[in-house]
Amino acid sequence: MKGNVLVGQSGGPTAVINSSLAGVYKTAMERGFNKVYGMRYGIQGFMDEQYVDLSHHIKSELDLELLKRTPSAFLGTCRYKLPEIHEDKAVYERIFELLDKLDIEVFIYIGGNDSMDTIRKLFDYSLLTGAKQKFVGCPKTIDNDLAITDHTPGFGSAAKYIATSTKEIICDAMGFSYQKKNVNIVEIMGRNAGWLTGAAALSRSEDCEGPDLIYLPEVPFNIENFTTSVEKLLEKKDVVVAVVSEGVKTEEGKYVCEYATDSAPKDAFGHIQMTGTASYLASVIKNKLGCKTRAIELSTLQRAAAHLASKIDVDEAFNVGGATVKAADEGSSGVMVVIDRVSDDPYQSATGVYDVHRIANGEKVVPREWINKAGNYVTDEFLDYVRPLIQGQYSPVMVEGIPRHLSMNLKNYDWRRGSKK
Amino acid sequence: MKGNVLVGQSGGPTAVINSSLAGVYKTAMERGFNKVYGMRYGIQGFMDEQYVDLSHHIKSELDLELLKRTPSAFLGTCRYKLPEIHEDKAVYERIFELLDKLDIEVFIYIGGNDSMDTIRKLFDYSLLTGAKQKFVGCPKTIDNDLAITDHTPGFGSAAKYIATSTKEIICDAMGFSYQKKNVNIVEIMGRNAGWLTGAAALSRSEDCEGPDLIYLPEVPFNIENFTTSVEKLLEKKDVVVAVVSEGVKTEEGKYVCEYATDSAPKDAFGHIQMTGTASYLASVIKNKLGCKTRAIELSTLQRAAAHLASKIDVDEAFNVGGATVKAADEGSSGVMVVIDRVSDDPYQSATGVYDVHRIANGEKVVPREWINKAGNYVTDEFLDYVRPLIQGQYSPVMVEGIPRHLSMNLKNYDWRRGSKK
Repeated sequence: MKGNVLVGQSGGPTAVINSSLAGVYKTAMERGFNKVYGMRYGIQGFMDEQYVDLSHHIKSELDLELLKRTPSAFLGTCRYKLPEIHEDKAVYERIFELLDKLDIEVFIYIGGNDSMDTIRKLFDYSLLTGAKQKFVGCPKTIDNDLAITDHTPGFGSAAKYIATSTKEIICDAMGFSYQKKNVNIVEIMGRNAGWLTGAAALSRSEDCEGPDLIYLPEVPFNIENFTTSVEKLLEKKDVVVAVVSEGVKTEEGKYVCEYATDSAPKDAFGHIQMTGTASYLASVIKNKLGCKTRAIELSTLQRAAAHLASKIDVDEAFNVGGATVKAADEGSSGVMVVIDRVSDDPYQSATGVYDVHRIANGEKVVPREWINKAGNYVTDEFLDYVRPLIQGQYSPVMVEGIPRHLSMNLKNYDWRRGSKK
Repeated sequence: MKGNVLVGQSGGPTAVINSSLAGVYKTAMERGFNKVYGMRYGIQGFMDEQYVDLSHHIKSELDLELLKRTPSAFLGTCRYKLPEIHEDKAVYERIFELLDKLDIEVFIYIGGNDSMDTIRKLFDYSLLTGAKQKFVGCPKTIDNDLAITDHTPGFGSAAKYIATSTKEIICDAMGFSYQKKNVNIVEIMGRNAGWLTGAAALSRSEDCEGPDLIYLPEVPFNIENFTTSVEKLLEKKDVVVAVVSEGVKTEEGKYVCEYATDSAPKDAFGHIQMTGTASYLASVIKNKLGCKTRAIELSTLQRAAAHLASKIDVDEAFNVGGATVKAADEGSSGVMVVIDRVSDDPYQSATGVYDVHRIANGEKVVPREWINKAGNYVTDEFLDYVRPLIQGQYSPVMVEGIPRHLSMNLKNYDWRRGSKK
């Protein structure tokens, strides 16, 4: 008989990370694994012996469907970096002791760059000790900054939410502009990679001009040029919409939001109050050009809005989850499942596996040639790459007017045994 | 033959104000009116002779369906208060001259309190001069603060968006809380009335605890009590979610966000930088309790998110629009259409008409008995009132992965003639 599967989630939540979890669970059951354990709060919670038997929480096909539609991390995540093996062997001994105790045959970790680093280290340790477990990484991040894979699950849904929300924001601003010029600055997540920020351009369509300016963190940001660009646009039109990454930096390598901090906003306790990039730039525009401004941060909603998930993304996240179990079951270890783009038109993708050593800690940014020369918009190539990933809806299961999620009922649950008391 | 209908939109945009416009257009056509003109940017644009012939922009049943799904104000809105008649008669003479010139029989204004004030004044002037036009108001405001009507179109969709987003925010925060307490503060629109802020409680369901604390502007806000409440909650749980109205005020009658301004955040130009209520409270919590905090403003999205509109709301907005034309056609003037709640279970509503003099400039706030004694949550009565209004989906028409709207093509359009050049 086959042993058990252990699966964990790590890093920032996404709208579809639970679809990958559902894929892991379903494939593990179909392939005859005994149990699927879920780490609570990733490897960090697991080391504290926090885990659940997923069969206690996914009891039906309907539960599985709800799980695919539940944002954030069903199991909880952590941000925990394993030490190097030579630095602290005890940590590894502890983990492998628990793996043996739970008869774990396959270890799946759903996450981004840091999580793949975890898979790499555990795999390397298993090579050193001859441990029998297989270690497979499942990609996930809204930032889309993982190397090798064409894109990452989570990105498409965040991109769809950003494109839709940007379009609605533009529409709102246009409806309210009579003889009042207004400048709207939308701030998007992605500190080092501008994939999500660029996705705002997908709002451009027959019925919407899209944002006027888009600034990715890949190109140095010049506050003066920005102001001049806005000023020029305001000569021709009443409403200007600019989209900026939270991570835009000036030539000096300083985050734009740090300038806000420098200029002394302190709160009642004398502490510095962090101001966002958008709200800082809005204040610059307001003071230089004197027009009405509005700063909008999409904040956590862009990674949590499962109600507007992309069907392509939910399905791929599910498939990628299943592919990790398949890969391990067929003997792979120390690998991450990747998504290969088989065709652009019609869009088709397939999963593959790739040596995790070549992935861990790499960071994929937007190529310079996919950003226009002026550094204030993305090119059609960029849009052709992203557009297929936001297609299709994955209708939420609506109960009483709002989306229903799968939640973990943990009353009367014994952490130490991964079972009911 | 019947004359023409003139319709305008005023005040803040909503997700369904265009559904009312669609209702006006459809009913006017069905009842045999000749043309339906739309004021561009409300009465203010109209006085500048900015108007369109809607048949040039709504060319099919599909266009009408798209219009119902288009957020913000298709015609554009303004915030313009007519002078009292005795103060500036010339303004009225100008408006009525234009009405006569365009052979307007029915004047419909879609808006909130200020717009009903416009209807009242124009109607009063028509009484004074014996002008033949009928003036009818169509209610609209996400704030739900209009008197007499059970609720206002626009509120239900905003409430649905707020409930859904709050649930997704809670879900996100819960997934990421291992050994790290975090406090999340969500800021909601509604400066004087807490209807929208209270709607966040609809996120509470079998699968979600809902926010821990909800503060409406109807009850004085005590910053110290707030901090103590959060501190107590953190003793029992890792994630605390508080929802606050942008308009909460302390006992001294000062907006909470003004305290932030007092404490001196100045930008690079020495100007005061406005900080939101949520971000100010987040900084208070961070400094007093030392835990991770996050401030989230739903901003314009709460009034523009047509992609998550409530079906009840879209349908009612459409019906109310139609009812304005019907009322005028049947001889009413100086009235506003209201929504009467006929039954709670099953929810049923019907339109009625009401003397606009009794509505204009009134402001309906949440009754004190629908807020709990401690002033930090809404009661079940509140929820029973709001819940029916967020039911049902009005699926967006998705094109290339994002919602399609109806947009006004104004190239080659002659404003002064309301027609193509």
